Amino acid sequence: MSHNSFGHLFRVTTWGESHGPALGCVVDGCPPGLRLDSGMIQAFLDLRRPGTSRFVTQRQEPDQVRILSGIFEDDRIRARFGGAVTTGTPISLMIENVDQRSKDYSEIRDRYRPGHADQTYDAKYGLRDYRGGGRSSARETAARVAAGAVARQILGEGITLRGAVVQIGPHMVDPENWDWEETARNPFWCPDANMAKSWETYLDETRKAGSSAGAIVEVHATGVPAGWGAPIYGKLDSELASAMMSINAAKGVEIGAGFAAAGFSGEENADEMRMQGDQLAFLSNNNGGVAGGISTGQDIVVRLAIKPTSSILTETKSVTSTGENVDIRTKGRHDPCVGIRAVPVAEAMLACVLADAKLRHRGQTGS
Amino acid sequence: MSHNSFGHLFRVTTWGESHGPALGCVVDGCPPGLRLDSGMIQAFLDLRRPGTSRFVTQRQEPDQVRILSGIFEDDRIRARFGGAVTTGTPISLMIENVDQRSKDYSEIRDRYRPGHADQTYDAKYGLRDYRGGGRSSARETAARVAAGAVARQILGEGITLRGAVVQIGPHMVDPENWDWEETARNPFWCPDANMAKSWETYLDETRKAGSSAGAIVEVHATGVPAGWGAPIYGKLDSELASAMMSINAAKGVEIGAGFAAAGFSGEENADEMRMQGDQLAFLSNNNGGVAGGISTGQDIVVRLAIKPTSSILTETKSVTSTGENVDIRTKGRHDPCVGIRAVPVAEAMLACVLADAKLRHRGQTGS
Amino acid sequence: MSHNSFGHLFRVTTWGESHGPALGCVVDGCPPGLRLDSGMIQAFLDLRRPGTSRFVTQRQEPDQVRILSGIFEDDRIRARFGGAVTTGTPISLMIENVDQRSKDYSEIRDRYRPGHADQTYDAKYGLRDYRGGGRSSARETAARVAAGAVARQILGEGITLRGAVVQIGPHMVDPENWDWEETARNPFWCPDANMAKSWETYLDETRKAGSSAGAIVEVHATGVPAGWGAPIYGKLDSELASAMMSINAAKGVEIGAGFAAAGFSGEENADEMRMQGDQLAFLSNNNGGVAGGISTGQDIVVRLAIKPTSSILTETKSVTSTGENVDIRTKGRHDPCVGIRAVPVAEAMLACVLADAKLRHRGQTGS
Amino acid sequence: MSHNSFGHLFRVTTWGESHGPALGCVVDGCPPGLRLDSGMIQAFLDLRRPGTSRFVTQRQEPDQVRILSGIFEDDRIRARFGGAVTTGTPISLMIENVDQRSKDYSEIRDRYRPGHADQTYDAKYGLRDYRGGGRSSARETAARVAAGAVARQILGEGITLRGAVVQIGPHMVDPENWDWEETARNPFWCPDANMAKSWETYLDETRKAGSSAGAIVEVHATGVPAGWGAPIYGKLDSELASAMMSINAAKGVEIGAGFAAAGFSGEENADEMRMQGDQLAFLSNNNGGVAGGISTGQDIVVRLAIKPTSSILTETKSVTSTGENVDIRTKGRHDPCVGIRAVPVAEAMLACVLADAKLRHRGQTGS
Repeated sequence: MSHNSFGHLFRVTTWGESHGPALGCVVDGCPPGLRLDSGMIQAFLDLRRPGTSRFVTQRQEPDQVRILSGIFEDDRIRARFGGAVTTGTPISLMIENVDQRSKDYSEIRDRYRPGHADQTYDAKYGLRDYRGGGRSSARETAARVAAGAVARQILGEGITLRGAVVQIGPHMVDPENWDWEETARNPFWCPDANMAKSWETYLDETRKAGSSAGAIVEVHATGVPAGWGAPIYGKLDSELASAMMSINAAKGVEIGAGFAAAGFSGEENADEMRMQGDQLAFLSNNNGGVAGGISTGQDIVVRLAIKPTSSILTETKSVTSTGENVDIRTKGRHDPCVGIRAVPVAEAMLACVLADAKLRHRGQTGS
Repeated sequence: MSHNSFGHLFRVTTWGESHGPALGCVVDGCPPGLRLDSGMIQAFLDLRRPGTSRFVTQRQEPDQVRILSGIFEDDRIRARFGGAVTTGTPISLMIENVDQRSKDYSEIRDRYRPGHADQTYDAKYGLRDYRGGGRSSARETAARVAAGAVARQILGEGITLRGAVVQIGPHMVDPENWDWEETARNPFWCPDANMAKSWETYLDETRKAGSSAGAIVEVHATGVPAGWGAPIYGKLDSELASAMMSINAAKGVEIGAGFAAAGFSGEENADEMRMQGDQLAFLSNNNGGVAGGISTGQDIVVRLAIKPTSSILTETKSVTSTGENVDIRTKGRHDPCVGIRAVPVAEAMLACVLADAKLRHRGQTGS
Repeated sequence: MSHNSFGHLFRVTTWGESHGPALGCVVDGCPPGLRLDSGMIQAFLDLRRPGTSRFVTQRQEPDQVRILSGIFEDDRIRARFGGAVTTGTPISLMIENVDQRSKDYSEIRDRYRPGHADQTYDAKYGLRDYRGGGRSSARETAARVAAGAVARQILGEGITLRGAVVQIGPHMVDPENWDWEETARNPFWCPDANMAKSWETYLDETRKAGSSAGAIVEVHATGVPAGWGAPIYGKLDSELASAMMSINAAKGVEIGAGFAAAGFSGEENADEMRMQGDQLAFLSNNNGGVAGGISTGQDIVVRLAIKPTSSILTETKSVTSTGENVDIRTKGRHDPCVGIRAVPVAEAMLACVLADAKLRHRGQTGS
Repeated sequence: MSHNSFGHLFRVTTWGESHGPALGCVVDGCPPGLRLDSGMIQAFLDLRRPGTSRFVTQRQEPDQVRILSGIFEDDRIRARFGGAVTTGTPISLMIENVDQRSKDYSEIRDRYRPGHADQTYDAKYGLRDYRGGGRSSARETAARVAAGAVARQILGEGITLRGAVVQIGPHMVDPENWDWEETARNPFWCPDANMAKSWETYLDETRKAGSSAGAIVEVHATGVPAGWGAPIYGKLDSELASAMMSINAAKGVEIGAGFAAAGFSGEENADEMRMQGDQLAFLSNNNGGVAGGISTGQDIVVRLAIKPTSSILTETKSVTSTGENVDIRTKGRHDPCVGIRAVPVAEAMLACVLADAKLRHRGQTGS
């Protein structure tokens, strides 16, 4: 029910604003006895951190995480597990905001930036924390990434999560060139080395023009056993759709073939099956690893559309909260393409949804 | 938490299998004093009913709804409201299954039909009701449509919900030809009279070939005030994504410009604003009526991709539950394009999500 | 969130009014592969059924349950399990109301019966179904008993649930005389044969005087392993308190020594431990089988206070919905002591809470 | 679902252990535009703070709260509201632990202290943070008190919450002597000046003997309108029972006459009604302000039984986690009667439950 929580047995509640003293989350329902320390979380936060290339915001945030509760160690636990472990009680994670530049907000406090949540927060709440977008800022996604690191411990080493950007602006990667290892070699999470070069040029131009670009992010989970997720309203794809659509600037989610499936015939779309030894194998994965809301055992494949960063230097028509027409340009430190930093966020959401599905499945069926 | 429920303050729990004695739902949290009788629900069920054209399943189901609880009338209530009204207590709705043909299921009980949930239900539960797909059958969506009729009473007359099919197979409607009134004049909910004729030909061929076609459905809500929905994990678009993705055969959901936004520049995507008299007006609706997870006051626009009906007459490669390769053809009475009957279902889900958002917004803010 | 649901992984939603066509519940989250048929549920309903002695209401209700969904059987399942089994999908249970006497309600529709929910339903909803109390009638508890029968299948044979009435009016059973087998030999669930005779006299007088009596009910669960329940707000005793307090006419709940513990010293209250062979054994059970919100492995012991039936023949002072003073006598068929029929209801709630705790514990910890 | 959260529209999630760096809570769903600053919360924390008299633990904790998110102020907000206000987004509250004495825990890490959650945490989780009881410590209740201060802002000035201790050990206050103002004049929240003196003597003896005492706490809410709470499983008394039973050491909860109602006749128990001018007035309050799960408009009256502090100096029989008999004495800084500091905690839980009920009622009914 809670607006700022998601998940059921594995449940994450986030808090914090862009320019408040800190942000964080409480991760509840984690199984006990899993190795966890701040370094394990920090590794994922560093992948999302701002300021790592010229294609992301230049805001300087170390994004150092502190674990305030929910783990424990003593000499015996270190001997048995190799370090601190979860206790089964809520894990509180906090990240201090460091680079909230003191500045004059008078220009934006009354003006609604198109594409941002300024108008809607005002309409809903009657007031808003306009500093850096307040609660609607993408800084909140740091808390998701931290929670995702905990979720990964639940999933264990048998499940691999990977993410990539597959389109920036009108430029799509070529599936023929797909190489997961490339995603670590360029600042775009691009699995296609050639396309990465084109994006570099494209985004440099975009950045210099004070414009921004949209993107499509794709995340995969390999090793998920058949049987996770539950019909009808707890369908794995339903949970994934909700989780992904909650990411800032997301405007679409698809599973497997997604919208392309609308153009298929039944024959083209059918994921046929054959035995491979004593294992069931699928001959295609149009379903993206989910059928009837339950995992099939194939890779879970999710794509999400991220709209262009709303903050652009070009003047746009807008209005003030008091009903006057204005033209507005959004200055400041912005990602020219927020889709890039959405990759570790989407991976984290995938991890959280799957961890929850694992625990719920185990709860109902015992396996 | 419940797998077969959705919504928060307005909460719907559905039950029933394709070939059980009945199906239905419990609608909880409905405000008191709203007019409701079975005729008001029946009108919407009739729009989704099978057997109404040759382009939908020929299963004969009257889909007559009974209201078993949650409404009341006496002479005074009739005088005051004009008929029975909701009492604020749970509304139990039941639809009996009539046309569950007695037949021999031995052929499918061990064979996994590609695209269906046969394999995944077995993987999850270790057994399944294979008659007509059991719980995974799209007959469950009748309960959603019934619940949606209740939700519409909460939304009231100021909010209009409309739906259309905008693509069948590779054939898309032309936005230039869009006429909402057309959707009632053809069996496809098609808003483009020309395209409706093309679809007729296309689907006749598809049907005769024993094949099936995918589709894209689009639903709109007009009249939703700014301010509904709530960040971060109760975002209106998040709730819509979850609700739509839970519909049988859905593989993708998008809001507003959706995946197309990924190809836009920031300037193209910006929904600029201007005052029209004393009203804020947007110059475009790429956001689909939702920004920061909260309604903007524009039309809510949602599209969902529906994969082709998995049941096809063409032989497809599959396996049995005991690990043998088989070839399988799905006989029986199937929709050549399930996307058509998904329109009233998607409208109903939209109604339910909005009704819940209305009540939650009122709960938190008092307005 | 839903007002008419309880439980988390094992979740029960009830619906229905005293004088509607039927009442029932949807039981969601039940594990698959558990034996279940209507006879297994009926056995428990028959223990709560009205009209079985002169000490309970004379309303004639067969309370025949129908299972509308969620179970399945075929020849193979019968061979493997011995009959129908749960499928893991929602179990819909319905009980038709038979003896809703057609009568004139004009006398009570405007008068607030003291102790009943007439005034509060009007205050909340602005209208109410006054026939037999509508939704506030204890007939709703039939649905709980039906759900409890499902919950017992989850708990399995290793866990025994038992209930007794330990006080009626001012007359308490003598713990020295406690014999569980006596509870089946008298119409009061009384474990003390002597006291059962006193109650017979006492309640005959109460009944003849048109009055009513309160009671205290005690339920035990034996065989619950240590480790169920979860701090802090999902404590097993918290869940039990909520579940028991939701029973009609309940005004108090205590666990173990309960209110008596307030008068104890720390030494008196301590449940000391000693090893018995390789098993931990407690030397007392003041904690009632729960410490820190988690089961200890001892018997779970819960008591609940049930106020006297509010419907009495004596004239009481009241008011009308239009603000006039009236004197009111409640005619009709009422339990002189509703505490008696609360025993199977309290047992059912105990079963449901424990079944949910079992699944949640398994979900989080895997054991 | 979350184990460490409670409430629905107004939802509180707590985190933290006795000897971790900090503890706190996230309060979600708070309406926007309510005045809130740390001083308003601190005032309530100071009432629960340890070390304020010789009858509570001597642990020295300043319990200074920090608000990390969810409030905002600028010059216009200060002019309009007089200070910082809630924004409608989650309010994160943190209290640092200061006095976690560094000490040797080897004595208790393997020994199960009777009455504590040592054995049950081990049984559930397979390991535990034994320092000061870890998550099971009553230090967690500081977070509840902080959340309660937020809840009070939702309830507003028309609703008054008050609490008292009505029994310590076997010594009960005399209702004839009840004076709410006395509760602020003695260290026991005792409304009976004479009894306060007796308790002083009694608790001094208890403390010197290294023993402890149980207590009964009573809390009242005045000014709650009729209509809050909702049948059947969201009953106001059900929610209160759950909330109160979740307080450390609570073993029983009753509403109004509670267990005493079991001994009443229907006539004695009936809360008769009469018009007082144009207002409905009750002639008694055995129902404790709740009928049918909905507030009547009378005072809400709740009592809870608190068992004696489990930590006592007397040697008690116990076992180790490795299955050996031991005798154990709990040294350290303990409350001789935890019931005393339970008063502000119970008041806070009452505030939170009522705030949630207010928002839910408004959500469903609009009033």
